Amino acid sequence: MYIYDILEKKRAGKALTDEEIREVVKAYVADEITDAQMSALLMAICINGMTTEETIALTKAMQASGKTYKYDFKSVDKHSTGGVGDSTSLILVPTLAALGLKVTKMSGKSLGFTGGTIDKLKAFDGYNPEMSEKKYLDIVKSCGGVIISQSSDIALADKKIYALRDKTATVESIPLIASSIMSKKLSCGADSILLDVKYGSGALVKSVFDAGRLARLMVKIGKKAGKKVNAVITNMNTPLSYGVGCNMEVYCAIMALHGKNSQLLELSKYLSAKLHAMHTGASYKKAYSLVSKAISSGASLNKMREIISLGGGDVSILDKPEKLLVSDYVVKVIADKSGYINNIDALKVAKFVNHLKDSVDTDKQKLRTGVMFNYAVGDKVNKGDELATVYSASKVTPAQLKELTDAVAVNKYKLPLFKLVVEAIK
Amino acid sequence: MYIYDILEKKRAGKALTDEEIREVVKAYVADEITDAQMSALLMAICINGMTTEETIALTKAMQASGKTYKYDFKSVDKHSTGGVGDSTSLILVPTLAALGLKVTKMSGKSLGFTGGTIDKLKAFDGYNPEMSEKKYLDIVKSCGGVIISQSSDIALADKKIYALRDKTATVESIPLIASSIMSKKLSCGADSILLDVKYGSGALVKSVFDAGRLARLMVKIGKKAGKKVNAVITNMNTPLSYGVGCNMEVYCAIMALHGKNSQLLELSKYLSAKLHAMHTGASYKKAYSLVSKAISSGASLNKMREIISLGGGDVSILDKPEKLLVSDYVVKVIADKSGYINNIDALKVAKFVNHLKDSVDTDKQKLRTGVMFNYAVGDKVNKGDELATVYSASKVTPAQLKELTDAVAVNKYKLPLFKLVVEAIK
Repeated sequence: MYIYDILEKKRAGKALTDEEIREVVKAYVADEITDAQMSALLMAICINGMTTEETIALTKAMQASGKTYKYDFKSVDKHSTGGVGDSTSLILVPTLAALGLKVTKMSGKSLGFTGGTIDKLKAFDGYNPEMSEKKYLDIVKSCGGVIISQSSDIALADKKIYALRDKTATVESIPLIASSIMSKKLSCGADSILLDVKYGSGALVKSVFDAGRLARLMVKIGKKAGKKVNAVITNMNTPLSYGVGCNMEVYCAIMALHGKNSQLLELSKYLSAKLHAMHTGASYKKAYSLVSKAISSGASLNKMREIISLGGGDVSILDKPEKLLVSDYVVKVIADKSGYINNIDALKVAKFVNHLKDSVDTDKQKLRTGVMFNYAVGDKVNKGDELATVYSASKVTPAQLKELTDAVAVNKYKLPLFKLVVEAIK
Repeated sequence: MYIYDILEKKRAGKALTDEEIREVVKAYVADEITDAQMSALLMAICINGMTTEETIALTKAMQASGKTYKYDFKSVDKHSTGGVGDSTSLILVPTLAALGLKVTKMSGKSLGFTGGTIDKLKAFDGYNPEMSEKKYLDIVKSCGGVIISQSSDIALADKKIYALRDKTATVESIPLIASSIMSKKLSCGADSILLDVKYGSGALVKSVFDAGRLARLMVKIGKKAGKKVNAVITNMNTPLSYGVGCNMEVYCAIMALHGKNSQLLELSKYLSAKLHAMHTGASYKKAYSLVSKAISSGASLNKMREIISLGGGDVSILDKPEKLLVSDYVVKVIADKSGYINNIDALKVAKFVNHLKDSVDTDKQKLRTGVMFNYAVGDKVNKGDELATVYSASKVTPAQLKELTDAVAVNKYKLPLFKLVVEAIK
């Protein structure tokens, strides 16, 4: 039997041929090989790995299993491998659109403990990210940028394989992650793609070494497919913004569009400038200056207003973001000692918020659940200060609050800060 | 999720606890974990292995998933890991029964290219190996020995797992093979078990090194379960008997019971004496002498007559074994050169016979299909001599015959013979 031979080969750690990979993907989509056979293959891949050639073949095969979008204009896209408090897309998309680029941003939903852009868009009452292709193209053409749900007709094989990986502990594999992301990104049809590969406690990839492997592999795959693809490796040990939780993250993104300084604004400007430079050929310095001006002039904010309006969303929060910070229970968290905040553990904060969300039922309640810190890593805090505010639709127990305070390390001495951007890969 | 953690652990090459293994097996039998999850675990085990402790825990868990037979007498059992032309059970069972031991022999069906004792019993018209437990016990008590089909109510987990392994290329794993065999053998309830672990072209385990690992592991598992378990490692590079194919193998077994010398008789006497000695405490020499006498005196043959009669089978072939060597097409194979037969490849011969069997429909036709060699490895043959006789229910093509002649290596010089028994493990 064909699949049996392929399984034996990968079990023995040998490389599969392009044809073998193509046949397996085809057969799995056609239900000609079983979940059990596919999961055995995925486990063998997790343990024995895949070569770059195999990973490229797998990406191509998964891309070929669904639709690939084609546009009559050149467009850009940014992808983050997922983090905590990461709402850079809400800043990058309107900024680059304001600078005249076409931004075809197809976003994913939340994955595990990480937030998804599509979930955040729910904060804009009425915005429908599941729009028709016609409407999507109309919006891009009229205002330059759009954020929609990743179409359900792309990379069908990836969808089926991902669901299986999720149940069989075969998610954590650099070649499988790379081919899954790239099969979708290549299907989305943008010409220039910037990959924000996160590492650290709040990322899916924990070590900076693995993030580097993943980033380099995805850049190779993208170039092989004839696209401009760059990657940056960024720190996700602490939440990217003061807010964690849907409404809080949108609040922070809007504040950044208003020009309020934060790590979030810093990274958004960096990513926007990088993508602008790689797409237009401008120098990074020039691009950065354009991006800064777009934000400080209010052009980015106005563009965001346009995008959300065209998508049917309520734009009032863009001018009154404080409307987002309401919930049934609002709890102030007080610092119990003085010192420097040397760490805010992204994973612990994300889990704290997710546990609060688990205890309520409606989508609206979940949107309103989260935490806003008043300090960032590196800041000094005094005993008795308000460290953070928790927003919850259900009562917050002391045990739950402890999850949050455990995430914050306050020490007498200030430790050096992590670099936000570790490396850029062309 | 519990299974997810277990999968991650084994993927990372860590040892599972007894409890984790017990829970996985239970959950799989209860359909609480899916085939996909189980096959991912099996693949991880194939690649990353299992410790002896894990293998013992898996054996126990699979044994606990079904019935374990208990007798009010002490009994012996022999198990072969499967080979070509291996009908030692048909000689060992009546011989030890004739010597006053209780032989509770539950046998399996053919597996892959290897022959199974249960299939061979079909040569005795009317013999029903699927008898009730009461009848089985009655026969053992009245005549000392019996050969029945391995009961379908033992080691239910092994049955389900084995079916999955067969489809997901996760068969070849020493710990999985060991736990599968031992969970069944321990369920069969004998007190002294002799394991005949075969290696070579016609065995499931090809290398003598792996056969050694498997044998040692199974002996450890058996002892841990409080049984007397010994193992021998024997050569399966060439067919054990002159005949390959159901009726031909039974013919050879009957000839051995009549005292005709062959490798088959030699190994049967060795295994019988080993098992007798380990069970009774007699010396091997004493046991061997008893076994030899049982065969030369006709006691073994008479006991076989009794066993087959009690099981409802036709015993006439025991006195007229030549009745077994009939088929629609009888083809003489002539030696095309002179020299020493240095090899008869067991796997190639088995495949030749199986291909002939594939071309006919009825069970009876398949029983009659096979080959009888006139020579053994080490013999000198002259060009023009009758090398072998092929029995087939369909016409034998020249291409098919070539499969057989390709299996026989005739050279000018005689090579040293392989040892039949490589090692005995207590």
